[in-house]
Amino acid sequence: MDSDFGIPRELSPLQQLRSQYQPELPPCLQGTTVRVELGDGTTVSEASDSHIIARAFPHTLGQPLAHFLRETAKVSDAHIITQLPSIRVGIVFCGRQAPGGHNVIWGLYEALKVHNAKSTLLGFLGGSEGLFAQKTLEITDDILQTYKNQGGYDLLGRTKDQIRTTEQVNAALKACTDLKLDGLVIIGGVTSNTDAAHLAEFFAEAKCSTKVVGVPVTTNGDLKNQFVEANVGFDTICKVNSQLISNACTDALSAEKYYYFIRLMGRKHSHVALECTLQSHPNMVILGEEVAASKLTIFDISKQICDAVQARAGQDKNHGVILIPEGIIESIPEVYALLKEIHGLLREETGMRLLFLLLHPESDDSAQLSQIETEKLLAYLVETEMNKRLKEGTYKGKKFNAICHFFGYQARGSLPSKFDCDYAYAMMTVKNWSQNAGSTSTSIGRPAIHPAMVDLKGKAYELLRQNADKFLMEDLYRNPGPLQYDGPGADAKAVSLCVEDQDYMGRIKKLQEYLDQVRTIVKPGCSQDVLKAALSVMASVTDVLTTISSSSNGGQQTA
Amino acid sequence: MDSDFGIPRELSPLQQLRSQYQPELPPCLQGTTVRVELGDGTTVSEASDSHIIARAFPHTLGQPLAHFLRETAKVSDAHIITQLPSIRVGIVFCGRQAPGGHNVIWGLYEALKVHNAKSTLLGFLGGSEGLFAQKTLEITDDILQTYKNQGGYDLLGRTKDQIRTTEQVNAALKACTDLKLDGLVIIGGVTSNTDAAHLAEFFAEAKCSTKVVGVPVTTNGDLKNQFVEANVGFDTICKVNSQLISNACTDALSAEKYYYFIRLMGRKHSHVALECTLQSHPNMVILGEEVAASKLTIFDISKQICDAVQARAGQDKNHGVILIPEGIIESIPEVYALLKEIHGLLREETGMRLLFLLLHPESDDSAQLSQIETEKLLAYLVETEMNKRLKEGTYKGKKFNAICHFFGYQARGSLPSKFDCDYAYAMMTVKNWSQNAGSTSTSIGRPAIHPAMVDLKGKAYELLRQNADKFLMEDLYRNPGPLQYDGPGADAKAVSLCVEDQDYMGRIKKLQEYLDQVRTIVKPGCSQDVLKAALSVMASVTDVLTTISSSSNGGQQTA
Repeated sequence: MDSDFGIPRELSPLQQLRSQYQPELPPCLQGTTVRVELGDGTTVSEASDSHIIARAFPHTLGQPLAHFLRETAKVSDAHIITQLPSIRVGIVFCGRQAPGGHNVIWGLYEALKVHNAKSTLLGFLGGSEGLFAQKTLEITDDILQTYKNQGGYDLLGRTKDQIRTTEQVNAALKACTDLKLDGLVIIGGVTSNTDAAHLAEFFAEAKCSTKVVGVPVTTNGDLKNQFVEANVGFDTICKVNSQLISNACTDALSAEKYYYFIRLMGRKHSHVALECTLQSHPNMVILGEEVAASKLTIFDISKQICDAVQARAGQDKNHGVILIPEGIIESIPEVYALLKEIHGLLREETGMRLLFLLLHPESDDSAQLSQIETEKLLAYLVETEMNKRLKEGTYKGKKFNAICHFFGYQARGSLPSKFDCDYAYAMMTVKNWSQNAGSTSTSIGRPAIHPAMVDLKGKAYELLRQNADKFLMEDLYRNPGPLQYDGPGADAKAVSLCVEDQDYMGRIKKLQEYLDQVRTIVKPGCSQDVLKAALSVMASVTDVLTTISSSSNGGQQTA
Repeated sequence: MDSDFGIPRELSPLQQLRSQYQPELPPCLQGTTVRVELGDGTTVSEASDSHIIARAFPHTLGQPLAHFLRETAKVSDAHIITQLPSIRVGIVFCGRQAPGGHNVIWGLYEALKVHNAKSTLLGFLGGSEGLFAQKTLEITDDILQTYKNQGGYDLLGRTKDQIRTTEQVNAALKACTDLKLDGLVIIGGVTSNTDAAHLAEFFAEAKCSTKVVGVPVTTNGDLKNQFVEANVGFDTICKVNSQLISNACTDALSAEKYYYFIRLMGRKHSHVALECTLQSHPNMVILGEEVAASKLTIFDISKQICDAVQARAGQDKNHGVILIPEGIIESIPEVYALLKEIHGLLREETGMRLLFLLLHPESDDSAQLSQIETEKLLAYLVETEMNKRLKEGTYKGKKFNAICHFFGYQARGSLPSKFDCDYAYAMMTVKNWSQNAGSTSTSIGRPAIHPAMVDLKGKAYELLRQNADKFLMEDLYRNPGPLQYDGPGADAKAVSLCVEDQDYMGRIKKLQEYLDQVRTIVKPGCSQDVLKAALSVMASVTDVLTTISSSSNGGQQTA
């Protein structure tokens, strides 16, 4: 198996062009000098969980947040590192592949070599199993050549995505010790970053000097907080899916007789569906978070769709496109349970099974999730109801006709967008965050990172709500077209990212500018009036902020 | 409904850029002078059908083929037309939408206006139903603005795709007469072009002066002969599908545990699957034409796949991508019949129906074809067999894991590729061909255009066969990437088009050059030896060609 990895391969003309693209580094990561400002210690997102988290992470919780500074930054207590010793780092792909994963390796490789040409990067072959078995490939520029800015995880491969059992954790420890690694980088989503956090704590406990770093690479967009605004892969996935959704919209509008029910991969939460809606303006989207918040049943949802179909038919529109996130099924617990039961029954009747591929069993629950064809179930319920209404005369449109799709796997292997190429390349510096930020306890007692939900009070959702009626009735379909690498759209950022305005560090900087201005105005020589006014105002500011900070238990987490 | 058509709309940045693209015209269509060389009369592709065709098309069969010439062409008997009267033309979308359809309208509009600014182009709203009901929209530059180089058929829409019954044909005749049309252009695939041929004959019979023109726009690539090398839409569809197939290949190679079974839309024949295979190099493709030629059963095919899976596992490869054309099911008649029967039974048991969405009924047979999930059936059969082999110990690889996809509708609405934009824009000149070329009789007595099969003796298929073993075992996946409009790949032509070397007109030109050379060499003043040699050689050439021509009943059809 090993011989397949890291081998050079023939690239198509577009792949060749992309392989020559050099991602830009943010100013704070350019050059050979590293400047770090240490912030507050990490805390937990839910104050009520702090005891549990503190107990589970005695060695790693509370470490200061590191803020990388650009050369021109004026921070008096910044740590300035000009010489780095040669280090050995291992890197492993965990979890579902996402576009941009290869650039995390490339970016890390370049960063290691820039700081010390003697540093070594070892790739583990075949995912976590390669880690346990200590199968490595030393990363070189030659090896990277045909993988730069390319999709997939095929440079190193992945297998089982788990580093959790005692046996697995011990094997990881042994690998890192045997290979004398200073660092282990785990590329993955929510689950893999939870594993990374626990592994870091376990290593610290065992006095293993290997530092564990998790890098948030996942197509689901659900691994975020104020420090991590987006995940590597999310931008590409949303662009590829939006292309296909737009094509379905154009198709629906041309034929004027179909409703497309499109289910989108994205795990439990609906970030992908929300972003794709904002990019391509289909008629309707049903977010899992809305379903959960309003405790909708499958029949409520189906009725919502039926009413929409009927309203559109009233305007002579007998077509439409409806997005359904794959995770919606988890927000309708009674259906999930029912489908699982039916599935169990069907497995026993092997004679008939070829017809029952609605639920196709897979090894783990989350993979199975993507096999539940919620879109077909909904289309069936809507069709039945519309036929009933047609017979009763309450619906007078054309016979309802649904076509179902699942968009998931076909986007995961895509060439990464420019955004993901750049973002992934710079990603190797997001250290430690995964160990704590956003962690909270699970019901079974092992603390885990909770995937971020779509914020129903957030600006992206607000934008959707403001436009939902127009999207539904007016066919304002928007076609961003296929993913481009040049010209219009090539540098477009995710809509939700742009409107969410989560520039946390930017706002801290803005605040510091205000403080500096006050300091400049109020200095020896200023008038008594100015001094008095400043004192009075700043006293109340301090008062208010102290109150807020103590009630929210560490303000920076709730910004 | 009418108010939806032809309205300006907001375009995405990429769409805006594309709307400003000006397709290039071939030299023979540039300028205001038209030069036409008339060739042989049209004949039929199968000599045995000639009597039936002649009886069905007494007024339209045998008209000369028209060859448009560039300004510099030296053809003594060319018809040169410098002034064209103002004419009125109607245009209608029929059949499944294909990328580039809008450019046929734009190109025709520009051509009409260039030759006579008073000419009028009327678009029929809502497809053939709009034709029957005489619902028209006069095409103007304003209306075209946001539809130039854009996908879909939404400028005019489409509905029922039939102009066949006496009632329909009479309604079409009445519309053309009432609207005083000099021409009616029908944009569509095999079925619509068959309808166009019959309509032309019917109009000629009825002494209606409206000329009927069929334009081959179809995503299936099955409407071709030596005069029409490709259909509008085929290039885009293959590029979009190849992008998605490549992504699945990358995904398979990264995860190393899935087999993707991908079914491709494309009607009865396997042109799309063949072209996508040549573009993206998946491990395996099963062409309907191969299945039919070798009379394979569903179990033969399943065994072929099982043996491939086993051979790959022997090289530690537990992943792969297999393409299955949607039309394959028609090449396995026993399965088609069986599935139809099961479907009928299931419809009666409404209580359980929500589970039986394997076959989803639609209004016509061809739509139903795309609903038969052959890929799931095959995946099931392969899984069952691999589990058996695993138990028996003959197969020692990982547990077989299939993921199924159907790629069809999501490509149809795509922004057209540069090739399709250019080709469609120039397409308005392909006149009359559809009336005869390639026609042959059907069993029910009404002559119809037969969709072209993949030629198992052709060069594209030969290229596939030469590489099939390597594609199967060596994972030479090729990723052309998303459809680009600039840079590498933007001007790529379909692989099958390039290798098929069907440059019929080019070869005729080459022959004419040889004849000219002989004429230049053998003229008064040349030596007796040269004259004797030329006479002797040309006598045998003429002899041989006469023999071949008479035996093949009009050689140009069998080239």
